[in-house]
Amino acid sequence: MNTAEVHPIGIVRSPYRNRGDAPRQGRFTPDTEMEIEIFEDYRDGIGDFAGISHIFVLLWFDRASRTALSTVPSYATERRPIFATRSPDRPNPIGLDIGKIIHVTGRTVRVAGLDALDGTPVLDIKPYVPSVDAIPDASDPFHPAP
Amino acid sequence: MNTAEVHPIGIVRSPYRNRGDAPRQGRFTPDTEMEIEIFEDYRDGIGDFAGISHIFVLLWFDRASRTALSTVPSYATERRPIFATRSPDRPNPIGLDIGKIIHVTGRTVRVAGLDALDGTPVLDIKPYVPSVDAIPDASDPFHPAP
Repeated sequence: MNTAEVHPIGIVRSPYRNRGDAPRQGRFTPDTEMEIEIFEDYRDGIGDFAGISHIFVLLWFDRASRTALSTVPSYATERRPIFATRSPDRPNPIGLDIGKIIHVTGRTVRVAGLDALDGTPVLDIKPYVPSVDAIPDASDPFHPAP
Repeated sequence: MNTAEVHPIGIVRSPYRNRGDAPRQGRFTPDTEMEIEIFEDYRDGIGDFAGISHIFVLLWFDRASRTALSTVPSYATERRPIFATRSPDRPNPIGLDIGKIIHVTGRTVRVAGLDALDGTPVLDIKPYVPSVDAIPDASDPFHPAP
């Protein structure tokens, strides 16, 4: 595989209009809600998420740089390799957010905890599985809690 | 955005050759190690991941179906909407695994906990940030622990 195409399955409707508006991590502003509108072609893929409290949302950062291999994160003073950061600037600018489901209405999934900008394309949604995805004792000294 | 291109930044070297070989979740077979070989063009993006214990690995499931909008997961008897499953078959077949870093040698990252097949393209690596990504009290009744 040299290249592959991705297509948006939906779009984010967010109160954040520009990169400066969004928090560093959506998890730290849990009261901000936004909506994911799933496109009609993918309606049958969503269901009602009954019993699922949190979802991974894979985003396409269409305003990011794809050439940067290092960056100085906003919380740091030293330059760091891009794959050791969560910067939107990366070779494949796929964002990974975790959203708490508020409710699902038709093709609209209302969530809290995302930091996505308005109009950001959505590539995928996956259920968050705590027995697999929650690793509280993982270490990452570079991304302190707020 | 109607479409965008993704390019592999690396490839998985795994003992799992075929879909039937891989465990349902790599986290449940923590003794199996595999390697991510980062391509030369992206060498400057990795560094040594010093202090980071776990990484998200975004994979491209090049052997998946992109047309399925529902599936019967291996652990279930009923058909479920695709975005409520972790099936590799999905409109944008991007896999999300969490790997525990064993060591980094040059362009090779040795990890445990992945369930990727040999030769699977890698799209991205991100540090796992426990203060953001670990949600032990999330609920998902459909993906029981083993």
